[in-house]
Amino acid sequence: MDMFRDFIPSGSVRLDQLLKFSITIDKMTSVLRRNLLIDRSRRENDAEHSWHISVMALIFAEFAVEKVDPLHAVEMLLVHDLVEIYAGDTFAYDVEGYKTKAERERKAADKLFSTLPPEQEEHIRSLWQEFESRTTPDARYADCLDKLQPFLHNTMTEGHTWRATDIRTVRAQVEKRMSALEDFMPEVHKWVVKNIENAVSRNWLRK
Amino acid sequence: MDMFRDFIPSGSVRLDQLLKFSITIDKMTSVLRRNLLIDRSRRENDAEHSWHISVMALIFAEFAVEKVDPLHAVEMLLVHDLVEIYAGDTFAYDVEGYKTKAERERKAADKLFSTLPPEQEEHIRSLWQEFESRTTPDARYADCLDKLQPFLHNTMTEGHTWRATDIRTVRAQVEKRMSALEDFMPEVHKWVVKNIENAVSRNWLRK
Repeated sequence: MDMFRDFIPSGSVRLDQLLKFSITIDKMTSVLRRNLLIDRSRRENDAEHSWHISVMALIFAEFAVEKVDPLHAVEMLLVHDLVEIYAGDTFAYDVEGYKTKAERERKAADKLFSTLPPEQEEHIRSLWQEFESRTTPDARYADCLDKLQPFLHNTMTEGHTWRATDIRTVRAQVEKRMSALEDFMPEVHKWVVKNIENAVSRNWLRK
Repeated sequence: MDMFRDFIPSGSVRLDQLLKFSITIDKMTSVLRRNLLIDRSRRENDAEHSWHISVMALIFAEFAVEKVDPLHAVEMLLVHDLVEIYAGDTFAYDVEGYKTKAERERKAADKLFSTLPPEQEEHIRSLWQEFESRTTPDARYADCLDKLQPFLHNTMTEGHTWRATDIRTVRAQVEKRMSALEDFMPEVHKWVVKNIENAVSRNWLRK
């Protein structure tokens, strides 16, 4: 199906670029993640995930050890997964997938962001790059929430993702992934550790 | 099902409030809107809609006639529909539903926002109230995008919402709704007018 079949141009190149970009990114609703929604009805998609962590970024700043600008983190979180429209979601514990992830996502970024007017392209690309770098306090804050939210989902769905993969996830893999929070959101990390204990004791996660 | 059955408390009242709020708002993924996704696969939900317009708010500011702070509009857009978790989505052209909408949503706001720590409650409530007021430039910008996005979806799905309702939507209803853009985003409004013409000529919308 030609996505733009019914699109009537505005007459302005810039406006048409923005409208078409808006149409394209609706594809985030069909990029599926491994985790279920908390109500267990179905797998979560990238649009839902991006919205959820953006709202969380508005309210969790007091738990970061450095001063963060929640709205700058929100900007990053809104766009951090857009490249998956073309590159697909790479599962957190997929070792093979991670080998090609950076290159696939770089190509996807070029394909998607280059459709924008230059100023917007520069802005969105720099947000994505800052998030990927995970070096600034705001990017680290955003990264913590991007990891906390699926952890929350797994905790509320009896470890669905951990149990559902072909080779069951082991405790050390989750501990390593969640260690991003240890220095930056230590009180939240303590809660995570408690819940990893619980997940192991309930056999949601292998020792 | 007890939503919090598997929730292990952190020991901090504030942190538990934030985590439980994060769990509760995942319900936005099951508040369905009238419009389809652009790929026509299913109806859009509130989480997807809120994410989509938030990204749009990052890129459309140049088309607003007043100077706007896109990130403040994003804050409002991320939370503007949260009350629908308890109040439900009220269809834009549902005259009866609109009679009780304000009261239902006020009660829902009290129920949901009061579960947050005081500072976060105040912040989220004030964002919701500013959006509802539609008086500040940022709130008007947010309101325009909240109307442009479903218009875009209808335009790309052969007027699905307009055709699917029991009593077919007439042109004047859509024109009235989209008039929010006329003064505030006039160039975008011109594109909307062209597309209303097209929708009428293709019989997606009644004269």
